[in-house]
Parts: sequence; C-alpha cells; structure tokens
Amino acid sequence: MIREIRERAADARRFATLPDPFPMWRGGVLHGARIAYETWGALSPARDNALLLFTGLSPSAHAAASADDPSEGWWEGMIGPGRPIDTRRYHLVCVNSLGSCFGSTGPASIDPATGAPYRVSFPDLSIEDMARAGFEVLRSLGIERAHTIIGPSLGGMVVLAFLAQFPGAARNAISISGTAAASPFAIALRSIQREAILRDPDWRGGSYADERPPATGMRIARKLGMMTYRSAAEWRQRFGRQAAAPELRGREPFGPEFAIQSYLETHAQRFVHSFDPNCYLYISRAMDRFDLAVHGPSIEAVFARARLERALVIGVESDLLFPLDEQRALAAALSQAGAATTFAPLDCLEGHDSFLIDLERFGREISRFLSGA
Amino acid sequence: MIREIRERAADARRFATLPDPFPMWRGGVLHGARIAYETWGALSPARDNALLLFTGLSPSAHAAASADDPSEGWWEGMIGPGRPIDTRRYHLVCVNSLGSCFGSTGPASIDPATGAPYRVSFPDLSIEDMARAGFEVLRSLGIERAHTIIGPSLGGMVVLAFLAQFPGAARNAISISGTAAASPFAIALRSIQREAILRDPDWRGGSYADERPPATGMRIARKLGMMTYRSAAEWRQRFGRQAAAPELRGREPFGPEFAIQSYLETHAQRFVHSFDPNCYLYISRAMDRFDLAVHGPSIEAVFARARLERALVIGVESDLLFPLDEQRALAAALSQAGAATTFAPLDCLEGHDSFLIDLERFGREISRFLSGA
Repeated sequence: MIREIRERAADARRFATLPDPFPMWRGGVLHGARIAYETWGALSPARDNALLLFTGLSPSAHAAASADDPSEGWWEGMIGPGRPIDTRRYHLVCVNSLGSCFGSTGPASIDPATGAPYRVSFPDLSIEDMARAGFEVLRSLGIERAHTIIGPSLGGMVVLAFLAQFPGAARNAISISGTAAASPFAIALRSIQREAILRDPDWRGGSYADERPPATGMRIARKLGMMTYRSAAEWRQRFGRQAAAPELRGREPFGPEFAIQSYLETHAQRFVHSFDPNCYLYISRAMDRFDLAVHGPSIEAVFARARLERALVIGVESDLLFPLDEQRALAAALSQAGAATTFAPLDCLEGHDSFLIDLERFGREISRFLSGA
Repeated sequence: MIREIRERAADARRFATLPDPFPMWRGGVLHGARIAYETWGALSPARDNALLLFTGLSPSAHAAASADDPSEGWWEGMIGPGRPIDTRRYHLVCVNSLGSCFGSTGPASIDPATGAPYRVSFPDLSIEDMARAGFEVLRSLGIERAHTIIGPSLGGMVVLAFLAQFPGAARNAISISGTAAASPFAIALRSIQREAILRDPDWRGGSYADERPPATGMRIARKLGMMTYRSAAEWRQRFGRQAAAPELRGREPFGPEFAIQSYLETHAQRFVHSFDPNCYLYISRAMDRFDLAVHGPSIEAVFARARLERALVIGVESDLLFPLDEQRALAAALSQAGAATTFAPLDCLEGHDSFLIDLERFGREISRFLSGA
C-alpha cells in the first residue's frame, strides 16, 4: 500500500473534511474521510465564479503550478492567467477523487475503526460517491453553486453523476471524453487490467507489502491503459518499427526489441511507483459500474432536473475507450434536456488522452465556452 | 507443454517430412521436422489446381470436415463442394504452421538431439520459416506451382513471405487481414500478451509442467486477443451492459459482473487447454518481427519478382490489429508490381475475426476471385 506517494517539498493541497458519517452510494459509510484539493484564482465576493474540476483515473489534485507548489501540474498550460481556464476570472477547485491515493480518503487510507489501512475492506466505491465528495468540497468553501463543473475521462463521468445528484448545484458543465455508461469494450479492457493485478501473487488479496506491490500486474494494467489512451496512428508516426535502444533490449528470452515496447515499459515502471493498486481496482470497477440511466427515468430526464444553462461535450474521433458516438449521444441528451449545448468532435491523433496533449484545440473549445455566450 | 492437444477419434491429418536439416531463416536448423496438413478435393492430373492455405495464430490444419474427420473445422462453410473454396474444382491443402502444436514441429515437440521437448531451446522462428515449411509440403505432394496461396491474419503474412522466398511457386495469392509489417500498436498488444505469460510464475522459464501451464498468463493473453479480434460495435450490440449469469459472477472480490466478462472468461479457459504457451510465444514474436521490406529493395520489387498473375486483398474497416490502411497499401503494391489485384475493403462489424464469421461476404469475394477472371 502506497499511502503518500509524492513526497514534495512544496504542497499546495488543502483538505476538506467530509460529513461524518459519509454515506456511500452502494451502502456502507466512511468516518473521518477527507478530500485533498487545490485551488487557483480568487473566489469572487458573490462566490459565483467557482469551477470544479474532477480528474481522470490517476492524477492528483495538482492540475497546474501555483505559488505554493510550482511543480508542473497534469493540465499545465490549460490553467492560469490568460489561459483557457483563466484564473484571473475564475476560482478553480480541483479535487483528488474519493478512493484515490493523493491525499483523499481511499482504500490505502487508515480505517479509523481499526487503525490499519482499509485495503479491500473499503466500502464499494461509485462514481456517485466521487461526485458527492466534490460537492462537499464546494460546500466547505461556502459555494452553493458552481459556475461550471468540468471533467475529462473518469472526471467526465463524475460530472454527470454530480448533475444527477445535485440539481441546481452547477450552472454549466463540460464533459470531455467521458460517458454516461461504459461500453462492453471498455468494461472488457478494464476487467483485464484488474485481473492482471488480482492474479499477481504479490497482490496477496489486497494485503501487499509496501515494498512489494503487485508490480507485474500494475505494469501490465498500465501498458494496456497506454494502448487505449493513445492511438495506433499516433504510434505509427512516432515509433514505427524503430528498434529499442540496445541497453533496454534485455537479455531474457522474449525481451523487448522495439521502441514501442520500451516506451510502454518506461511508463509502466513509473506507474507502479505512483499509484496504489487497491485504489486502482476500486476506481476502475466504479467506472465499469457507472450507468447514469439508473438515476432515470432517462438520461434526458436526469439532465432536465439538473437545470443546466449551458453544456460543452468534447470527444475525439480516435478514442477507442470513450468513443465519439457516446459523446454525440451525451450532447444530444443534454440539448434535449434544455441546456444550450455545444458538441465539439475533434479529430486529434492522440486518442483518449488528447485532452492532455492537444491543449491548443481543447483550450480553444474550453476558452470559447467559458468566456462566451 | 501440451503436445497433442486434440484427442480425436477421427484424424484427417497427414504429415510431410521437412528436408533434414531444415535451415531456419534467422539461424539454426531443425532435424526430423514435420508438418501436419489436411487436404480436400482431388489433385488434377496436371497438378495445377492446388490451393495452399495458411492459418491464423491458433487454428490447426483442420479447416473443414472431411470423410476422415467429420468434426467441424475452423473455416467450415467456406470449404466444400459448391462452397467458395470449391473442392470439386480445387485441391485444398491446409497446413498447421511450423512452430504450432497441432502435429507440426514446434517448441512443444521433442528435440531429437536431447529426447526432451525443445521449449525455449527451439530456434528463432520467423514467418519466413512457416512459408518455407508450406512450400515443402507442396513439394512433397509433387506440386511445383500452387494455383493460389491463401491466408488470413498470420496466414496472410505467411502468404507474403512465401511470395518473397519462392518466386513463381504460386500463380495467384489471397491475403486476408494480413500485413507486410506489424504496426507499433499490434506489437504493443502482442508484447503485452507475451508478457502476461512470461511473468506468470507457472511459466517457469518455459519449463512448465503439463498439468500446470501458465494458465493466468494464457487467459489474459487470450482475453486481450479477443478484444482486438472483435470490435467494440459488435460487443455493444451483442452484450451491451447485460449482467453476467449469477453462477458466473464468482465470490472473490472484483469478480466478473458483466456478461462480456464471462464471455471472455469462457474463451480464455478454452484457450488454456488448447494451445501450448511456448508455441504461442514463438509465433507471436515472429509476427512482431515480420517485415516484408527486408526482402527488398521494396515490397513492390518483392512482388514483381514473385510474378503473380492475380491477387486479392481483403480487409475489414473495424480491424484494430491489421487496419484497413495496411490492406490498402498491400493491394497498391501488388498492383504496382503487375498483379491484377482486387482490393476488397469490407465494413463488417466483427473486426479482425470477420473472416471467421461473415462467411457470406468473405465467401463472395473469394468465390469470385477463384472462379473468375
């Protein structure tokens, strides 16, 4: 279990204490739970300029550099004065998801009832719980209504769960490469990733030692993730059939031979040391289970109750995991529910992860939405 | 090691002894090697009606039922009297690939030098070796020139290696969802599949016990294969978010919950008991390494030397692993080299495996090609 992964000299995190008990959507409660978050820009006196940002599966709340933590954030370039998420105008709050391992309560945290980490005794985690935790962070800041809630990937799903549970708590919403319900293809991929971890003998039913996490399972899970976060076309341009550097080719039989293999290995090694395996399992399963329609009677009805003014849905053609037709359907439902909706299908080459890479095009859409209309 | 996997009452296999020594393309030789094959239809007195069929990664030579083995073959429906591959007219020879485990010599076979299975001491295996083995089968049957060589998937790659090495030994060629060189995306996928096997403690450096193969690695490899053999759109139609049957949901934490998961599990279990892990590793790596251009100076030059009369290239739009642009490029090169080439891009829903499922559309193309022009 890897509780506090990033040892940083600087730390911009703040912590919101969740209501105790905090009821989980599928049953069970948490006691003494907290959410780590970071903020950028000032909250207006009327408290009406807050943007709430939910992350993808693996990032922390550190979306961008700030005075308290000048290290580069996961969405650096998107956030700051004059940037698409303009911190001269908006007060941005980015939360580390409930269930994650960068300061928020999750399976790697200490269960106050036992004094030992929860591990697999953590209650069932749902996308709905992550949304509620974000809502509570806003409440702790005295914000009744967010100007806009934003989320890419998993974060996009959390945005939808927020709308379903807290009607009127957000004026506008931006969903980036998210989905109202995982497809069987995405479920298949994620369940194979989880299986690689669960079957790693070092997982030990969730009770792995700190110094011996299920590294093989995590590496395989991450490599599979990389395959679906990017696109075949990007890799063809970038790697082609280039050989791996000789020092990376390894001497064991069937070792890496191509550059694409060492690229995956480098990313995978990094992941093993930066994310807790049990947290990964919990969040991954929550993504499979999420189905906005259960808040029904239809997703249009869910959105109508949410009373959004405007919505932006961005999707990418080369995304295998959250395909464009799911983005289109989402935009159609939002529009039908009465939100002034912009659907932005982008033909970026980088697949699902394009929002992290093609900041120019994503920035243009977000900037136009936030500044406009 | 699983040497003879299918215990069948009926057996239509025949065996061709390869020249001894049989030189391997990347070095090393085999002694006493053999290839299992099956045939359908009669060879004409002029020996000019032979079709040579190479298989995908995992099938045996049993492509269709016959008097000697009435069990269903892997391309049943495509082969027989009046079928697209019309056995009243053609003499079809299907070979089990060199390196596989259904009667042909491979890593699971006994090394005559030691009396023990080769396992990872089997020499480096290349697509070129599989092609040479097929060529030797034809020679053993007294066939100087095949009417047409045919191959889907891996088999399509073997067809190209055959053309590169044996100019004039085939009049026509059909490549189905093959490729002249694996893309980095395909290499990534296959290397993750191999890694799952290599990292399974039960692999034991290739020396696994018969009764304890690296089942977890093989199951994960197969599930990943299934993800790329089919398509997201097909699964959406077929499974949606349907729950797994209660008896399949399992009681361990993070067990299967959705029908797509039990579908994958069923296929994966079957694979563990039907394919040898070391054979899988060897063939999979050979696919990554294959690059027709090394026979150069260009693939057009390779094809020009082959002196094909006609060629048919079939590809499928939803194929993630052998994408349509690779099929298109292949057809263009064949055409430029002087073969009368038909390119048939099909919009089947079933992805890479469409050739096994959409027999009607594939049959129509093959039938037209074989009967026509």
